Amino acid sequence: MAFGPAAMGYDRAITIFSPDGSLYQVDYAFEAVKKGWTTLGVKTKNAVVILGEKKKASQLLDVDSIEKVFLLDDHVGCSFAGLASDGRILIDYARNSSLQHRLVYDEPISIDYLTKLISDVKQMYTQHGGVRPFGVALIVGGVDRGVTKLYMTEPSGQFMPYQAVAIGQGGYNATDYLEKNYKEDLSVEETILLGLNALKASQKPGEKLGPANVEIGFATKDGQFRKMTIDERASYLQKI
Amino acid sequence: MAFGPAAMGYDRAITIFSPDGSLYQVDYAFEAVKKGWTTLGVKTKNAVVILGEKKKASQLLDVDSIEKVFLLDDHVGCSFAGLASDGRILIDYARNSSLQHRLVYDEPISIDYLTKLISDVKQMYTQHGGVRPFGVALIVGGVDRGVTKLYMTEPSGQFMPYQAVAIGQGGYNATDYLEKNYKEDLSVEETILLGLNALKASQKPGEKLGPANVEIGFATKDGQFRKMTIDERASYLQKI
Amino acid sequence: MAFGPAAMGYDRAITIFSPDGSLYQVDYAFEAVKKGWTTLGVKTKNAVVILGEKKKASQLLDVDSIEKVFLLDDHVGCSFAGLASDGRILIDYARNSSLQHRLVYDEPISIDYLTKLISDVKQMYTQHGGVRPFGVALIVGGVDRGVTKLYMTEPSGQFMPYQAVAIGQGGYNATDYLEKNYKEDLSVEETILLGLNALKASQKPGEKLGPANVEIGFATKDGQFRKMTIDERASYLQKI
Amino acid sequence: MAFGPAAMGYDRAITIFSPDGSLYQVDYAFEAVKKGWTTLGVKTKNAVVILGEKKKASQLLDVDSIEKVFLLDDHVGCSFAGLASDGRILIDYARNSSLQHRLVYDEPISIDYLTKLISDVKQMYTQHGGVRPFGVALIVGGVDRGVTKLYMTEPSGQFMPYQAVAIGQGGYNATDYLEKNYKEDLSVEETILLGLNALKASQKPGEKLGPANVEIGFATKDGQFRKMTIDERASYLQKI
Amino acid sequence: MAFGPAAMGYDRAITIFSPDGSLYQVDYAFEAVKKGWTTLGVKTKNAVVILGEKKKASQLLDVDSIEKVFLLDDHVGCSFAGLASDGRILIDYARNSSLQHRLVYDEPISIDYLTKLISDVKQMYTQHGGVRPFGVALIVGGVDRGVTKLYMTEPSGQFMPYQAVAIGQGGYNATDYLEKNYKEDLSVEETILLGLNALKASQKPGEKLGPANVEIGFATKDGQFRKMTIDERASYLQKI
Amino acid sequence: MAFGPAAMGYDRAITIFSPDGSLYQVDYAFEAVKKGWTTLGVKTKNAVVILGEKKKASQLLDVDSIEKVFLLDDHVGCSFAGLASDGRILIDYARNSSLQHRLVYDEPISIDYLTKLISDVKQMYTQHGGVRPFGVALIVGGVDRGVTKLYMTEPSGQFMPYQAVAIGQGGYNATDYLEKNYKEDLSVEETILLGLNALKASQKPGEKLGPANVEIGFATKDGQFRKMTIDERASYLQKI
Amino acid sequence: MAFGPAAMGYDRAITIFSPDGSLYQVDYAFEAVKKGWTTLGVKTKNAVVILGEKKKASQLLDVDSIEKVFLLDDHVGCSFAGLASDGRILIDYARNSSLQHRLVYDEPISIDYLTKLISDVKQMYTQHGGVRPFGVALIVGGVDRGVTKLYMTEPSGQFMPYQAVAIGQGGYNATDYLEKNYKEDLSVEETILLGLNALKASQKPGEKLGPANVEIGFATKDGQFRKMTIDERASYLQKI
Repeated sequence: MAFGPAAMGYDRAITIFSPDGSLYQVDYAFEAVKKGWTTLGVKTKNAVVILGEKKKASQLLDVDSIEKVFLLDDHVGCSFAGLASDGRILIDYARNSSLQHRLVYDEPISIDYLTKLISDVKQMYTQHGGVRPFGVALIVGGVDRGVTKLYMTEPSGQFMPYQAVAIGQGGYNATDYLEKNYKEDLSVEETILLGLNALKASQKPGEKLGPANVEIGFATKDGQFRKMTIDERASYLQKI
Repeated sequence: MAFGPAAMGYDRAITIFSPDGSLYQVDYAFEAVKKGWTTLGVKTKNAVVILGEKKKASQLLDVDSIEKVFLLDDHVGCSFAGLASDGRILIDYARNSSLQHRLVYDEPISIDYLTKLISDVKQMYTQHGGVRPFGVALIVGGVDRGVTKLYMTEPSGQFMPYQAVAIGQGGYNATDYLEKNYKEDLSVEETILLGLNALKASQKPGEKLGPANVEIGFATKDGQFRKMTIDERASYLQKI
Repeated sequence: MAFGPAAMGYDRAITIFSPDGSLYQVDYAFEAVKKGWTTLGVKTKNAVVILGEKKKASQLLDVDSIEKVFLLDDHVGCSFAGLASDGRILIDYARNSSLQHRLVYDEPISIDYLTKLISDVKQMYTQHGGVRPFGVALIVGGVDRGVTKLYMTEPSGQFMPYQAVAIGQGGYNATDYLEKNYKEDLSVEETILLGLNALKASQKPGEKLGPANVEIGFATKDGQFRKMTIDERASYLQKI
Repeated sequence: MAFGPAAMGYDRAITIFSPDGSLYQVDYAFEAVKKGWTTLGVKTKNAVVILGEKKKASQLLDVDSIEKVFLLDDHVGCSFAGLASDGRILIDYARNSSLQHRLVYDEPISIDYLTKLISDVKQMYTQHGGVRPFGVALIVGGVDRGVTKLYMTEPSGQFMPYQAVAIGQGGYNATDYLEKNYKEDLSVEETILLGLNALKASQKPGEKLGPANVEIGFATKDGQFRKMTIDERASYLQKI
Repeated sequence: MAFGPAAMGYDRAITIFSPDGSLYQVDYAFEAVKKGWTTLGVKTKNAVVILGEKKKASQLLDVDSIEKVFLLDDHVGCSFAGLASDGRILIDYARNSSLQHRLVYDEPISIDYLTKLISDVKQMYTQHGGVRPFGVALIVGGVDRGVTKLYMTEPSGQFMPYQAVAIGQGGYNATDYLEKNYKEDLSVEETILLGLNALKASQKPGEKLGPANVEIGFATKDGQFRKMTIDERASYLQKI
Repeated sequence: MAFGPAAMGYDRAITIFSPDGSLYQVDYAFEAVKKGWTTLGVKTKNAVVILGEKKKASQLLDVDSIEKVFLLDDHVGCSFAGLASDGRILIDYARNSSLQHRLVYDEPISIDYLTKLISDVKQMYTQHGGVRPFGVALIVGGVDRGVTKLYMTEPSGQFMPYQAVAIGQGGYNATDYLEKNYKEDLSVEETILLGLNALKASQKPGEKLGPANVEIGFATKDGQFRKMTIDERASYLQKI
Repeated sequence: MAFGPAAMGYDRAITIFSPDGSLYQVDYAFEAVKKGWTTLGVKTKNAVVILGEKKKASQLLDVDSIEKVFLLDDHVGCSFAGLASDGRILIDYARNSSLQHRLVYDEPISIDYLTKLISDVKQMYTQHGGVRPFGVALIVGGVDRGVTKLYMTEPSGQFMPYQAVAIGQGGYNATDYLEKNYKEDLSVEETILLGLNALKASQKPGEKLGPANVEIGFATKDGQFRKMTIDERASYLQKI
């Protein structure tokens, strides 16, 4: 930073444009995402799977009690990378929005609309003073009336649909694996195994995936998003 | 920036005038527009067409699910270049305004007035503290009581009527093509093809327009703005 | 700027006084006015005329659809130079104020009072924090109970009555022409032709006035302010 | 400014104290007063007169339509030097306050109290953040229950009673003339002529006082403050 | 200021602590007090007297109409040194508070409590952002149920009881005189003469106290605070 | 700080992102935690224990009256390290939230949810302007429907479940001891003794644990969180 | 300050954390406490005594009328060191809180709770923008249901129970004396004499304690907090 001419102060004020049209605070918030635990999602014709890795950062951390994949509603789940406390706030907001939608319209919220609601909150925090952007990216996925959906929302409030997407520390390696192995017509089991293999590919030498340090949520055509038990996770891990 | 005397700090504060009467934050917001995906509009006597290019920025991006041309009401559509999350906020606002107009006055909103409403929001964000300007330019077009309309709204809140206009990365080349080939009395099909050819002219060497990475919306004298199916897009692309 | 001792930071904060009693932000806002398209007004015993030039800044700009002279009420019109989006906000405000005056008092608003209302808004934006001054000057003119009126309002909120006044890029040359040729007892037609000749005198070498790139509004003793059709403009242009 | 140690930043923040107990923003606001058109007031036993000079700053300025001496109520008038738009705001406030006083108490507002009300608004703008001081000084005068009154209110909100006071560009010279020639028991006509002579003494070489570029208001024992017609002004000017 | 290390910026922000626990803005506000016209108070067993000097700063200043000693209620008066407009605001507040006290409790406000009310307002302006401290010190005095009271309130909001106190330009010399000559059991007349002599002692060579440029208010055991007429002042001045 | 290029101002503004995605104000708040008195918690199958050390910082400090372990509700307690006044605010909030939960739902609040409520307040203070983060970390523990729970909430608003956790001055050494000696199936007494031994291990040479300078709270399967008397503490201290 | 690298700007902004987790504004507020007049409290089994020294800072200061020990309610008193006006605000708040408690619950407020209320206000002024911390420390003491209580509240909002505590200019020496001579089971008279001796020990050479420049308040088992008359003070002073 000390020698580059580009950032001369534009990155120190509350979210304003730099001369090249960037919002530095938003870019920096993305750096917080890149430092988070790896998490990824895969969408095929038959299933959506969301996986998150949990690292035993400290030996006495009760990793079992940490949640990394979250149910937002019966048919939709999510995971995130970045500032955990920021993520929690957005997940609360998403759950409340889903619940209210059911109460008001007597039907589940569409995943497109739910993702948009989360992203609108994020956008607001990049345009108005007195706040900082959310330092978190969410992967939102599920099945809407039989159609699989997968989105990633950025700190800017932009969200994009993906066939597969990986974020966090191992995001680069996991994406590389996914790009080489993704096929649209995988079976449910193949979809889950693709996700697990991508997560494995993202690990650093010496790290090991076990049923205790991965969380898996998935939805199939039937429309239910559910999280695997530790036994199910162990069973899938044996197949990779 | 580091050596020019002109910008000495005027561009770092929330939207204020520089000694030459410029609003640097507004100028910088336009830089965000110039980095967006190319989008363009063409207005002739017989039709208005709005086209937007979608780039497969990442291999696993589900480009099919991305929307680039948006219906604002039955008779009017738009596209944008710049910050996608900012654009989404304005499109939501435009749709709500159109809907309310129908509810209150029982007739469609005029395209002039709708464009003014969007632009008034933009202006407010350039004159009041605690916010940043919108980093997005919108192309708004449609048919009003049989008359074709086409506007481009800038981050400053200024909007201008155009016969044809192109913005984003390829805006310079597309504009060049349009200036050389525009005629006011083209048929509907010729209007669409002019737009597609201009988009093609804006591409970098090696890029290729396919039905999957372009969106096309158009309105004819009958007053309906509608988006083409992928088959219609493929059919038109074969003619250029 | 880099070497002058005068401005040492006084021009960078929100509208405050410099040691010599100037408000730099207001002065800079006037620079935006000086960069606008030339516009001018002439007031004689028999008529008030307001003219604005429209430049075809881009070849595909639909200049015909751009408005440069605006009706504020039946008896009063205006034009402006400076930031178009700022001007639009003030014109909306003036139209609403005129309308409300008719509703409440059942008579047209006086041009003096309407100009004061516009200027009061401008003043407020130079004295309170969190906003920037309006970067626009308005020429307001019309006929009040048989008396011709012409005002120019500055970004500071100051307004002055003029016999003739010209602002924008060509303001200096147009003013020079007006000072040499102005007489108070011109006929309606002579008043209009004086305005057109002044506008012509303000043009740069190579520029040409045509019916398509000038707008003319005028009011005579009968008290109606109206805008000329393109045919009327063409007819007047032939006489100069 | 560039070399003096005294002002080191104390004059750049919103109205705060400098180490010597000054409020620089208030001092600078007074500089704006010193650049205004000369205006002055004279109070004798028999009359109060307020005069303001109007300069034909531009050849086409309609000086006749500019007001420089203002009626605040039947018995009290004022003039100002400094930022015209700031002065207008305070005059509006004074007129409304006078009117409300009549409505509530069914008697004219006292000139002391009216001057205090104006000055309280000014004080508030020197002590609270987010605003700048008023860049204008008002001379307020009239006759209260048979007693002549004359005050000058400063940008700080301080007001003082004067026998005679002159402000603006020619304030120094006019004051000098007044100090040498003031007597308390002048007749009404002598009071007016003293004021006119002081204004004349404040002019620069080459300037000339005519009935068109001076405004005169005065009040006598009968308690009515009224402005002279151009003929009256011409008649008085012939006597000096 | 330019060379001392102590103040390095702590005096430029809105009222915050410096490393040595000072509030510089409050200290600077006291400098404004030191530049004011000399004013003083004396409290003995039999009387309280408050005197203020009025300087004919300009030859045409109507010194007679300037008030320097103020009645706050029947039994209490005050004077001040510092920013006159700030003082006026606090005096208004004190008068209103006294009046409300009478209305609500049907008895005069105690002088202790009134002084506390004034000081609480001052304190608030030293602890909350967006305002500056009051640049004025008030001397408040009177007789409460037969007991003489005298307080001085500082810009910080601190107030102290005094036997005698002098502030403003001549405060140092007047205090010196008072310390040497104060006795607690002076008669009413002796108390007044002590005050006048102290004021005289504070004057610069060449200055002269006359009945026109001093104001005197006093209260005796009977509890009434009243201001002397010019004749009374003249009579006392002859005795010193 | 003085020489590293990394922090160039990002740590001086209200909580914003640095280029590497950090929130410096939050990191600095954690430094306040590290300077606090050592406190720790241990969770086994059979019990949760929370211990806090009280240092006799000054000889006359009435250490007996200082509380270091706090009951939040019947079944849940907490301790903290960092700014004591910040901790008190959050404990008040937690107690009120527990009480309201009982009133509204007629059942005890879950420890997960209570910890989330505390952490949501903390998060809010890291994302909105005009406030600073809480400089305190809380250890929250108890028994929920027979299941032992232990959380530590950070200044960022992040909270994590732990088997054992230690914070404050001796946090590093205590954690080291806990990592080497923790077992999940300790008895209630063994759990308490593990905590006490860890606290002892965290002490500096020369320091000594006595019943007067340690506070111990614990909960067993029966679900009651209670604090030990000084005699109980003495009795346990004899066993280590 | 000028040469140390530690403070590089962290102390100039509104209360934020420095890299080592300090709140400089709070530390600086404590400096104001250290400059105040010495005040101290002693708590034994039988009594609580609070003493404050009053210095005759100026010869004409009416020291007798200055209050240094304050009754907050029948059973509780306090004294303070630091900014007197800040102290007054908190004492008012404490008195109102005590009164309201009596009105609502029909019993005296507990001293613990009253101290917490005062401290909560202080904490709020260290965490929210737009204000500065209170520059004052309070010693609060009394007897609650037969138990003696003594607290000192710091500018940070932290409060601690003490057996004896001394603050202000002579705080260091007084504390030293108290540490050497404090015993828990002193009689009421011995407690008072210990306090007086500690105050004496804190004086500078040449200073002398007299009944006029010390204030003493105390409470015994009977629960009444009362201030000594000057005769009582004189009587106790003769015993030391």
